[in-house]
Amino acid sequence: MFSKVLVANRGEIALRIQRACKELGIQTVAVHSTADANAMHVRLADESVCIGPPTARDSYLDIPSIVAACEITGAEAVHPGYGFLSENARFAEILEAHGIAFIGPSAEHIRIMGDKIAAKKTAVELGIPVVPGSEGGVETDAEARRIADEIGYPLLVKAAAGGGGRGMKVARGPNELEHALANARAEAKSAFGDDAVYLEKYLATPRHIEVQVLGDGKGNAVHLGERDCSLQRRHQKVWEEALSPALNEDQRAEIGETVAAAMRKLGYSGAGTIEFLYEDGNFYFIEMNTRLQVEHPVTEMITGIDIVHEQIRVAAGATLSVSQSDVRFDGHAIECRINAEDPRTFMPSPGRISHFHTPGGLGVRVDSAVYQGYVIPPYYDSLIGKLIVHGRNRVECLMRLRRCLDEFVVDGINTTIPLFRQLVDHPDIADGSYDIHWLEGFLADSM
Amino acid sequence: MFSKVLVANRGEIALRIQRACKELGIQTVAVHSTADANAMHVRLADESVCIGPPTARDSYLDIPSIVAACEITGAEAVHPGYGFLSENARFAEILEAHGIAFIGPSAEHIRIMGDKIAAKKTAVELGIPVVPGSEGGVETDAEARRIADEIGYPLLVKAAAGGGGRGMKVARGPNELEHALANARAEAKSAFGDDAVYLEKYLATPRHIEVQVLGDGKGNAVHLGERDCSLQRRHQKVWEEALSPALNEDQRAEIGETVAAAMRKLGYSGAGTIEFLYEDGNFYFIEMNTRLQVEHPVTEMITGIDIVHEQIRVAAGATLSVSQSDVRFDGHAIECRINAEDPRTFMPSPGRISHFHTPGGLGVRVDSAVYQGYVIPPYYDSLIGKLIVHGRNRVECLMRLRRCLDEFVVDGINTTIPLFRQLVDHPDIADGSYDIHWLEGFLADSM
Repeated sequence: MFSKVLVANRGEIALRIQRACKELGIQTVAVHSTADANAMHVRLADESVCIGPPTARDSYLDIPSIVAACEITGAEAVHPGYGFLSENARFAEILEAHGIAFIGPSAEHIRIMGDKIAAKKTAVELGIPVVPGSEGGVETDAEARRIADEIGYPLLVKAAAGGGGRGMKVARGPNELEHALANARAEAKSAFGDDAVYLEKYLATPRHIEVQVLGDGKGNAVHLGERDCSLQRRHQKVWEEALSPALNEDQRAEIGETVAAAMRKLGYSGAGTIEFLYEDGNFYFIEMNTRLQVEHPVTEMITGIDIVHEQIRVAAGATLSVSQSDVRFDGHAIECRINAEDPRTFMPSPGRISHFHTPGGLGVRVDSAVYQGYVIPPYYDSLIGKLIVHGRNRVECLMRLRRCLDEFVVDGINTTIPLFRQLVDHPDIADGSYDIHWLEGFLADSM
Repeated sequence: MFSKVLVANRGEIALRIQRACKELGIQTVAVHSTADANAMHVRLADESVCIGPPTARDSYLDIPSIVAACEITGAEAVHPGYGFLSENARFAEILEAHGIAFIGPSAEHIRIMGDKIAAKKTAVELGIPVVPGSEGGVETDAEARRIADEIGYPLLVKAAAGGGGRGMKVARGPNELEHALANARAEAKSAFGDDAVYLEKYLATPRHIEVQVLGDGKGNAVHLGERDCSLQRRHQKVWEEALSPALNEDQRAEIGETVAAAMRKLGYSGAGTIEFLYEDGNFYFIEMNTRLQVEHPVTEMITGIDIVHEQIRVAAGATLSVSQSDVRFDGHAIECRINAEDPRTFMPSPGRISHFHTPGGLGVRVDSAVYQGYVIPPYYDSLIGKLIVHGRNRVECLMRLRRCLDEFVVDGINTTIPLFRQLVDHPDIADGSYDIHWLEGFLADSM
């Protein structure tokens, strides 16, 4: 096992990783920008190194500074957390070249999954379901019709050279296909100078469901069930649940085993998340995140498995501490991301926290690195804490969440807590009947 | 269900009960002495009533003031917490006479279990094992010898009129009996003017093991497993675990079912704890606590069952929400009672908390009602918080506890945290091999 680990991150995730290190008897090194000299992750680390000015590019993203901090302190490994350098294959390679372990998967796996086209190709090879579509461009209307019949309607006609929704048209049935093809081609030609188009199944009301996996690169891999992260604003997750209210046990076991088998085949090492769109009983691969996710605690709450412990152990050469038969799902967990933002406009709200009280009690976990008197710097993301609540079932979990949201006190700045107080009482949330568009619609209606 | 509950207590337990009420959608009323006007249980309640001066006798123990507070606020029920009026049968009766529900068992059951002799007699009738002994005094040496052979050695010869260890002698075998009888009689005669003695089995190195029960007074009762509370100082519990490292599954199921059956027979309603001494595979009834215990959270952490929810539901006339087959034990939990005391002399250390940081993360719960800047008043007990830690097994639980004790910051006053830092690293604690005398011995050795 490592004797000293450097955590190349800040905020709640730096603290969370330090806790895991300390439980494993590992000394911790914090790095920080000059803006974070008083941050809690610095205060609670065994050692700390200032690695640059506030701008992330010059501090938390500065690879030479982080390598130097490892060398100064004798850290044997680096945990990158999420964001920053966590999915930077070059960072993993540079650390390796310096004889420092990267707590994460191989640079090769980071690289494959970081490239959308390579990732989808790899997913197909590994037997992970992807969005059906024409393999490449479609030339003629007849070819399009034949492929469209295979994919089924509704479907999307998309510009091969496209992006940002331009040159993209929906065909809801065979009678709309010809028109959609013509329009998409014309728009593509005018926007990109290239009228090549391809077809893809259109998902109207999907949920975002992701499967947590752990592998040890020694042929073992397990899944820890799924998380439902459908409640999003501008593609940012806001509220996450484990397990998903939309799946039954058979679906869970099937997609979980598909993904775990894929990871065994890949020889994947560390924690990872396979993200899917889910609609009408089918899963469609979006991407794989080759790192710890913000929302990993909901999985921990229902399994009792410390995902960061496993990441560290595996990076140190151990095999997974759990086999699939050890993994049990107990109750229900929900995470709310508490951001320092105006709950209506979502404008960032940095500043001094004049009063801070976090809820507690049975089934309650608050992952946060702020404290009363702390001044939130304006340089980084606005996440100031995660409220994670567990109950024996989803109803109990929601009852407890409602109480915790009422008890949470953050004075001096704006936070998104009032939004969660609205959500927890909404009948669609109580039913679990929401898709990835639901929250945007709710926000538009309540403006 | 009640719409408003008054919590007749202070400190962490008042807060803990308020949380349960709020989760069930119940409004809360706090009562407080003038010394507690700024206490957190007052700040977080929906309403509060000042019921008197700092002295508990004139506030938290003053029944007319509490009844008046109920009448002023329209509270329909009172939760007494632990200590104060929680085992006062008269309080339960007076509330009932005013049409206010007492969240606890019937006055009759409180009264029976509050009387040591009646409690032991009831335990015998209910099939709960008690310490074997002569039913009454022994007259002659021959009679003593006959009874002693039945009980087995070692045994205690105790003055019938005695107390405080006077007139009490140990006979380790038959050859010591005559001598012990003579000495005990002589000491009893001189100390109490009465040389009557009786015999009782002597337990040299027992553990304190207690079984948590829930009943609904409708014929249903379940046990939630046991807690091991052997680590005590002057009969005060210091560190509690669930489950006990000393029991195996068969022993657990057997004593649990014995106690649950006894509670069904009694028609017991609410939460209760049957305390035992345990030695060499046998349980010996000490007493029953007809209330919530300080250490109830360790049971909640391994079962996921909110004991206060159950108390409230049952008091409102509901049946238990769990049957015995629903009760599962998951992992291991330990509670450390953090007292505002000098960790060597145990002298109370009231005063202002200048800095307060509680550990968090997976499996960590801190039940506390203090905050940074809070001034601990000198009038009440010195418990300022309970650190409760859960792990998938006892080893993981101890690793996590060690980390949490290191992370816990309470500046400005003395606390018992340093004592727990010593305990968590002690090989006897790691082994789970300790009895009710172990901590006193450890403290004597480390002085």
